[in-house]
Amino acid sequence: MASSSSLYLSQALLARAVHGLNPSSDRVSLSTSTLYLPSFSGLRSHSSSTSSSCKAPTSTSSSRRVSSSSSSSVRATAIETLDKTTDVTLVEKSINTIRFLSIDAVEKANSGHPGLPMGCAPMGHILYDEVMRYNPKNHTWFNRDRFILSAGHGCMLQYALLHLAGYDSVLEEDLKSFRQWGSRTPGHPENFETLGIEVTTGPLGQGIANAVGLALAEKHLAARFNKPDSEIVDHYTYVILGDGCQMEGISNEAASLAGHWGLGKLIAFYDDNHISIDGDTEIAFTESVDKRFEGLGWHVIWVKNGNTGYDEIRAAIKEAKTVTDKPTLIKVTTTIGYGSPNKSNSYSVHGSALGAKEVDATRKNLAWPYEPFHVPEDVKKHWSRHTPEGAALEAEWNAKFAEYEKKYKEEASELKYIISGEFPAGWEKALPTYTPENPADATRNLSQQNLNSLVKVLPGLIGGSADLASSNMTLLKSFGDFQKDTPEERNIRFGVREHGMGAICNGIALHSPGFIPYCATFFVFTDYMRAAIRISALSEAGVIYVMTHDSIGLGEDGPTHQPIEHLASFRAMPNILMLRPADGNETAGSYKVAVVNRKRPSIIALSRQKLPNLSGTSIEGVEKGGYTISDNSSGNKPDVILIGTGSELEIAAAAAEDLRKEGKAVRVVSFVSWELFDDQSDEYKESVLPAAVTARVSIEAATTFGWEKIVGSKGKAIGIDRFGASAPAGKIYKEFGITKEAVIAAAKELS
Amino acid sequence: MASSSSLYLSQALLARAVHGLNPSSDRVSLSTSTLYLPSFSGLRSHSSSTSSSCKAPTSTSSSRRVSSSSSSSVRATAIETLDKTTDVTLVEKSINTIRFLSIDAVEKANSGHPGLPMGCAPMGHILYDEVMRYNPKNHTWFNRDRFILSAGHGCMLQYALLHLAGYDSVLEEDLKSFRQWGSRTPGHPENFETLGIEVTTGPLGQGIANAVGLALAEKHLAARFNKPDSEIVDHYTYVILGDGCQMEGISNEAASLAGHWGLGKLIAFYDDNHISIDGDTEIAFTESVDKRFEGLGWHVIWVKNGNTGYDEIRAAIKEAKTVTDKPTLIKVTTTIGYGSPNKSNSYSVHGSALGAKEVDATRKNLAWPYEPFHVPEDVKKHWSRHTPEGAALEAEWNAKFAEYEKKYKEEASELKYIISGEFPAGWEKALPTYTPENPADATRNLSQQNLNSLVKVLPGLIGGSADLASSNMTLLKSFGDFQKDTPEERNIRFGVREHGMGAICNGIALHSPGFIPYCATFFVFTDYMRAAIRISALSEAGVIYVMTHDSIGLGEDGPTHQPIEHLASFRAMPNILMLRPADGNETAGSYKVAVVNRKRPSIIALSRQKLPNLSGTSIEGVEKGGYTISDNSSGNKPDVILIGTGSELEIAAAAAEDLRKEGKAVRVVSFVSWELFDDQSDEYKESVLPAAVTARVSIEAATTFGWEKIVGSKGKAIGIDRFGASAPAGKIYKEFGITKEAVIAAAKELS
Repeated sequence: MASSSSLYLSQALLARAVHGLNPSSDRVSLSTSTLYLPSFSGLRSHSSSTSSSCKAPTSTSSSRRVSSSSSSSVRATAIETLDKTTDVTLVEKSINTIRFLSIDAVEKANSGHPGLPMGCAPMGHILYDEVMRYNPKNHTWFNRDRFILSAGHGCMLQYALLHLAGYDSVLEEDLKSFRQWGSRTPGHPENFETLGIEVTTGPLGQGIANAVGLALAEKHLAARFNKPDSEIVDHYTYVILGDGCQMEGISNEAASLAGHWGLGKLIAFYDDNHISIDGDTEIAFTESVDKRFEGLGWHVIWVKNGNTGYDEIRAAIKEAKTVTDKPTLIKVTTTIGYGSPNKSNSYSVHGSALGAKEVDATRKNLAWPYEPFHVPEDVKKHWSRHTPEGAALEAEWNAKFAEYEKKYKEEASELKYIISGEFPAGWEKALPTYTPENPADATRNLSQQNLNSLVKVLPGLIGGSADLASSNMTLLKSFGDFQKDTPEERNIRFGVREHGMGAICNGIALHSPGFIPYCATFFVFTDYMRAAIRISALSEAGVIYVMTHDSIGLGEDGPTHQPIEHLASFRAMPNILMLRPADGNETAGSYKVAVVNRKRPSIIALSRQKLPNLSGTSIEGVEKGGYTISDNSSGNKPDVILIGTGSELEIAAAAAEDLRKEGKAVRVVSFVSWELFDDQSDEYKESVLPAAVTARVSIEAATTFGWEKIVGSKGKAIGIDRFGASAPAGKIYKEFGITKEAVIAAAKELS
Repeated sequence: MASSSSLYLSQALLARAVHGLNPSSDRVSLSTSTLYLPSFSGLRSHSSSTSSSCKAPTSTSSSRRVSSSSSSSVRATAIETLDKTTDVTLVEKSINTIRFLSIDAVEKANSGHPGLPMGCAPMGHILYDEVMRYNPKNHTWFNRDRFILSAGHGCMLQYALLHLAGYDSVLEEDLKSFRQWGSRTPGHPENFETLGIEVTTGPLGQGIANAVGLALAEKHLAARFNKPDSEIVDHYTYVILGDGCQMEGISNEAASLAGHWGLGKLIAFYDDNHISIDGDTEIAFTESVDKRFEGLGWHVIWVKNGNTGYDEIRAAIKEAKTVTDKPTLIKVTTTIGYGSPNKSNSYSVHGSALGAKEVDATRKNLAWPYEPFHVPEDVKKHWSRHTPEGAALEAEWNAKFAEYEKKYKEEASELKYIISGEFPAGWEKALPTYTPENPADATRNLSQQNLNSLVKVLPGLIGGSADLASSNMTLLKSFGDFQKDTPEERNIRFGVREHGMGAICNGIALHSPGFIPYCATFFVFTDYMRAAIRISALSEAGVIYVMTHDSIGLGEDGPTHQPIEHLASFRAMPNILMLRPADGNETAGSYKVAVVNRKRPSIIALSRQKLPNLSGTSIEGVEKGGYTISDNSSGNKPDVILIGTGSELEIAAAAAEDLRKEGKAVRVVSFVSWELFDDQSDEYKESVLPAAVTARVSIEAATTFGWEKIVGSKGKAIGIDRFGASAPAGKIYKEFGITKEAVIAAAKELS
């Protein structure tokens, strides 16, 4: 038993060395079972205090030393005695377990990507077994280390790791139903399907950008809440990305920001396997990634043998942790499909099952005598310690937080909102309200009033713009810039990197339920970030997209800058709220909706131009999506219904006024969010758009595509089914027929 | 006169030195007017042959030596005597003309971006006056050098240059109507509005990627058509990009490819002015761009004084031209708004008019005594030579081409198709046709049959995939890969860089009218490249987007990979054709439409799964967008109309068969392209979708958004208004109700 205790001790010290910053809470083995004996050395020089702090734990909870005092010398010692202390045989057995769980699951599904898990199993093992701090029985534990598989197609790696680590979300039957209907192990990692998955990946490059967001969130919270006597926020973000991620522009955007912000606790593993779907990366990817990342301000380490160089990987992580002012890229050269004698190092192992014959050959080659999906007992036992250890880690942190709360009430209260996702009582009272007497203003300016009011009551509100803060009107006036040396601030400067911005905000949103990230650019440039916005919608990340300059109303910048099809394109997207407020109250209503919907992102389209505060608009109206703002009819039977959104609601209202003077019974409906209207009861819908009234005219300075649903076959949609033009806004409105006169003419024609 | 002749001689030699590769056709002054005398030296060492070859031209046409013999020694001499030979005073006057035309136009419009033109005027002047080869009276001259302003907001720079260079598209009145309705000088450069503008820029990063496409096109054509005795294709691509472009991921994608491909004739000027809209780039952009570009395989030069270091700029261009195996980035450090005493070097000069007071101050500061929009006579005269010179350049090339045509008939014929945009007679006969007896196949495979047939008859067809060639089925089997050393080939390997791919294809398409670039990825990843696709549509670049895996039919990869809203989102976009063929004939029809529409890009959505060849489908039907494939009704009065697209047309057809057995009169309509159907006559539309028949059922494995337009208020749209799922395709279809049974039930309910 002495041997195995020593083994565990050495592993613990290694882990401590690797984890670095917080030696007091590193993993120490709780198991006393027999294990493969390692051939190690080097523990003799340990001080007695080190030994006594770790050996012979007697129970789960007491086994972990939680005091933070006097352990720095221990850590130093541990670092010096890092090498050759690992039970290589067991490690390899664990790594091969990961490989074969992946192989077997893909084989059973006859679909999936075995190549990456086989190549990345070593770094995966070291991360989940030796380095990361998590609680498998509570995937929401706030201070856990985060892991992102940016190369999401290799998800069997992560499922295998979650399975071994003891997450209940991935049981053996889940591995066996990989990629099947209703399973918890879909074809790419989905945070909303599999507890323990942090973000949804698969679309390449998103994950590394999410990871930047997660690391930003940590750095921000640590700076904001940690105290000299209590490091209450302290975790790492690990990510594995592949060649595909590296080629995507979004990863360069995010990496440039990570370097700029000095995200020292972001550690990215670049699975450098030289193979992508079309073959050797030589055909399309010959840049020097190392040099690029150095240029981006990262610390770069190269692990030349990622297949079996376990100590190299460990040493790289250790080194990465010593670099606290820069993110680290660990380029790990691996062999895709490692272990497969005939398919490794080729694209054929990337995205297809190996096939029975090659699975057999791989079993032989790696000397793996087990049945499919079998986890050897010693491996199982070895990993079993993570359950009690994880519980202890969380308990330790909870105790620490209780202490913190006693001393720092206010901060603890703020942090709890961020951790829990609850809203401070009465937060919505901060929303500004308006009357028609308030001066006309651009909704982008009204948006800024909302942001600046809300930031005072919502501890998790944080965000910024892609180099258009002064145009998008997104600056939080009571805060400075989140920067490398001022990470406690809440204005994020994303630079002209829309795609990275969206994905970073997804990472922030999914870091903790109480984060409410917002980001901004011109509405037309949602085209640059659409893939990230879609992931917000799919992964239930409640990002608020503040999108200004929402129509031809922006004027002279012309068609490259004027959205036309964008409203329709987001109305067509599942699980996202497309809001287009018309004035002050509707802007406030849009923010209320956006804040409340934490699992459904919102896009708020805002005007560059001034708009009057209209009579009849309201926050409550916005919450229903579509509602009547004025009506001179009775019995729910107007002669005509005029429907507008955003800047064109004013036109509809003006047309109604004229028509009423001519004796018409006219209802004006604001259709600020189609999705919210869809969610209403049939009775409510009938009260706004009675089926019997087919004389309906809509006006919106955008494509008419989709409006048939609202105006019906007999109605008329006024819009713009061409690209815009460069000229003063008023001129374009007139030339394109987005006018009161056009509404009146259409209304008369129909009623 | 001797002095000014010598001046021009020296400038010519300088230009020759700069232009480098083709000394025989470099610019030589044609003017003999008096000019500011320069203080120069260094011509004395010229050989007599040099002098005789250049001095005292007597007429426009004879002034340019077109023989290519014995001039290399001249070039060498010229290079050695590069420095201090320029009439700095006139150059500065020209540069200030560019600055003030920009200032005045922005001021008059009270809208626009003066900062970049003021800072980049020196490089702009040197490019258009000294370096570039073009014919201002024929902006379509094939062998012209291309210039792209990737930082498109600075378009007044380009308008001023086109104006000075003698393009009829930018006359004084055009400058005076900058950013006004109907003007030829819109707020960002638009190739379809202003002759002489190569591509449409403004959305940042697009232009540098377009430039990579243009340079690719040149390298490809040069390798394919040049002969040892005739360099018929030989031009450069110049681009100016700013900090904003550099931050965008797309620029990194494109630059990585440019480095990989070794595009030696691509020369990019990075306007390094340290200012973006939100202020100093220090707040968000602190990476080392130099190092990144070196990592990307570029040659990097730094011009430290871009404001007045004219010779530095010239020397950099000269150096760039000597590096023939790498693209060159010339980082030019400039002052944004150079010359404005109070606003230069600040974000306030980026995107707003200077204001009358500051315009005055700038006039004083730069000693500019002229009225707004005035071009001093000597500047005008100096630039006037470009008109005859440009004509001579083109005439020279035409003569060269005539020679080439005599010797290389076949090649000349091919090249002419690419230059002219005409199609070889009978090309469409290459389109494959199918009958229901042909075996079921995935439309992605049928697409490959089309591509491989068409490439034999369309000299301009070239393209590839974003690392999914074997999934998108886009390989041209009779060609190899376009690579650094095999640029004559026609399979382009874009790597996982969808956004760059789209923009590169825009560049190829706009290089010459006969180029038909295609590019491919999974349909869902159009989200990554949407900004480039929109520019295709706006700028009339007839790119063919081959988008496979077009629905839940892709199965196990799950919701991250399954498009839902994408069809609707492109149907809503102006000037693009969204095509979703159902089988072999419709795939061929889609390609016919896509090839013919050279100014309207096409997206062809293709299935991963096998589909039967249906009875009644046709190429001609596709050309109409929507058409009847089967009908057992008479008198244009079916009981019900079933409408399907792509993989669901099969389901509609099967449902019809069952319904007919029960005695129903059923029409089945294929709705392969909504846009093409919209273009048909009302009579035709009525013949397919008679207004009187309101019993209409549509089925499409995608959002129902927009289908109300086709099925009407009384019809039913069967689709998917949620995200997809990871499971075998058949299972998802069944679970989501995309089934024959659902169509039959809906049809019965309605009819």
